[in-house]
Amino acid sequence: MTEKIDVSLGTKTYPIYIGHNLLKDTDILCTYVLSKQVVIISDSTVADLYLAKLRSKLGGKESYEFVIPPGEESKNLAYFEQIISFMLEKKINRSATIIALGGGVVGDIAGFVAASYQRGIKYIQVPTTLLSQVDSSVGGKTAVNHSLGKNMIGAFYQPIAVIADTATLATLSERDFNAGVAEVIKYGLIKEYSFLKWINDNITSILSYDETSLNHIVKLSCQTKAKIVELDERENGIRAILNLGHTFGHAIETFVGYGNWLHGEAIAAGMVMAANMSLRLGYLDESELEIVVRLLQKCSLPTQPPQAMRPQDFLDLMSRDKKNHGNSIRLILLKNLGEAFITDEYPKEVLAATLKSYDNL
Amino acid sequence: MTEKIDVSLGTKTYPIYIGHNLLKDTDILCTYVLSKQVVIISDSTVADLYLAKLRSKLGGKESYEFVIPPGEESKNLAYFEQIISFMLEKKINRSATIIALGGGVVGDIAGFVAASYQRGIKYIQVPTTLLSQVDSSVGGKTAVNHSLGKNMIGAFYQPIAVIADTATLATLSERDFNAGVAEVIKYGLIKEYSFLKWINDNITSILSYDETSLNHIVKLSCQTKAKIVELDERENGIRAILNLGHTFGHAIETFVGYGNWLHGEAIAAGMVMAANMSLRLGYLDESELEIVVRLLQKCSLPTQPPQAMRPQDFLDLMSRDKKNHGNSIRLILLKNLGEAFITDEYPKEVLAATLKSYDNL
Repeated sequence: MTEKIDVSLGTKTYPIYIGHNLLKDTDILCTYVLSKQVVIISDSTVADLYLAKLRSKLGGKESYEFVIPPGEESKNLAYFEQIISFMLEKKINRSATIIALGGGVVGDIAGFVAASYQRGIKYIQVPTTLLSQVDSSVGGKTAVNHSLGKNMIGAFYQPIAVIADTATLATLSERDFNAGVAEVIKYGLIKEYSFLKWINDNITSILSYDETSLNHIVKLSCQTKAKIVELDERENGIRAILNLGHTFGHAIETFVGYGNWLHGEAIAAGMVMAANMSLRLGYLDESELEIVVRLLQKCSLPTQPPQAMRPQDFLDLMSRDKKNHGNSIRLILLKNLGEAFITDEYPKEVLAATLKSYDNL
Repeated sequence: MTEKIDVSLGTKTYPIYIGHNLLKDTDILCTYVLSKQVVIISDSTVADLYLAKLRSKLGGKESYEFVIPPGEESKNLAYFEQIISFMLEKKINRSATIIALGGGVVGDIAGFVAASYQRGIKYIQVPTTLLSQVDSSVGGKTAVNHSLGKNMIGAFYQPIAVIADTATLATLSERDFNAGVAEVIKYGLIKEYSFLKWINDNITSILSYDETSLNHIVKLSCQTKAKIVELDERENGIRAILNLGHTFGHAIETFVGYGNWLHGEAIAAGMVMAANMSLRLGYLDESELEIVVRLLQKCSLPTQPPQAMRPQDFLDLMSRDKKNHGNSIRLILLKNLGEAFITDEYPKEVLAATLKSYDNL
């Protein structure tokens, strides 16, 4: 069964389709690809699996393909420029459509290309990883990384449709799949205690790729994210709660070098650190922190930062975070399980104590 | 006297201030720079003249400056990246304000930096050339060039204010000033016959930098542009008439290499070519074409393309233009003096004959 969720953003409203084997469905794709020219951007892993299938659905379109190496290292300005050059050489015009076929890296860089090519052309997200289906493909955040920080160059630019085929999740490695579950758990933690409870109760069936469970977690995650994005498209306020665990997590990713930890793995450790600090501030109790830690452990996700990281490493890297205003480090913390809040007013000693509790020196 | 024109774009509405010696006015600037951090982006020519003056108006702000070499060659992705790196090194956060102090090159690259830095921060345009005061600073078009075409990488991203100090025009070279007059004439040609007539009647006083005349042409140009941008911010339709002469003109700029002809010079020749083609299609008569040619000649502007350019050079370069949809070359032509229209349905022989009439082989 195909689910359809609308992200309501006025003239920029677009649908998310969720279902098993949606890539076999020509109708949905052809409803949105109205241009003569199509540019499919993918990575080599995903291209081997799904590019021919996608191409065969495009009928008589003039279609072009640009394939980048897999992994976070490809999400940079150099590949951004290469894709733009390729499109100019092929004389792609402003009415063309880009299809981003792949995980978050492909979606983010393809989205930023779409936002910037001749000042913006249409694009469709076809996310093929759990992480991108529940997070990066929805909400119009596009970007490339900079050596001084993740997602530092980008745009808010909405796709015209998202097509999430949950059958593609079967080809993910266990590690990649589990990293995606971290973001699913995040939605439960920040906004939906009942969803968190559902995940906790059904974690075995989720981790065994049960079709119905997969459709359910993707749908609930997208619904939660869509609701938040509708309230605050450009992250001037509430949308920042989607970044639970990300301030700590981005610091980890930058420290270890992109790609050594998966994004979801860094976010898992980051969420535990945020929960730990929430406990120190009196919001959570020990048993609640334990629920978070145990659920993430069941998914084989890390629940603490890399051994080599010192508190000062965190402070240095976190002070560069995009969410900061002025000099204080803005954090997303938990009032309860299922209720996140944004703050830059907290005793600095509590942040220091939290970081120190993970320090191995 | 300070004139204020609003560009009405809903939540993105912003004012254009026009007046003599506005850079001496602390109040206007301080109304819009509310952040603690300010990044001034300028080029070395303009920085020598006005940067210290601008800095002195910023009081206790934490201010940073990035100065690029003057000229179109600086408007590229390499400088874009350098500015972003500089800002990350300085830990500029998302609430900072960028001030673009300079001509079109500075405004376009600074605007694209503002659009892309951490997915978008505020910026103010302080245009110091006639071209940028009447055109590029208004309407939110930002971009950098690519070797395969001008403005190919960019965004629609509106400033929070434009401050046009017409006193800065006195320091322009005659050549730069005249190139700006080409765009002023464009507004008369595309939409306001009465303004065209006014320019024609007052060209001597304009070319002698008469203060009242300067304020008048900047004001009328901005008003005309604002009205068109309000109707069609993202150039899905009518806004394209602002590109009269630009399809031919961009081909000239790319052919000769950026910077060898000034933008306004290429647009002057391009407008004559568009008028010539309009005559061949029966819209204009010889005497009207003559008015355009003579007015541009009075401003010492070119009225034909470079001798070395062949018709095929135009066709190759024009087929890459952003305005094209599908395979035909979209053109802005004149129904009358004061009335432009957009078309991609015209006999191809007429374009060929127009190009051939300028061919020296």
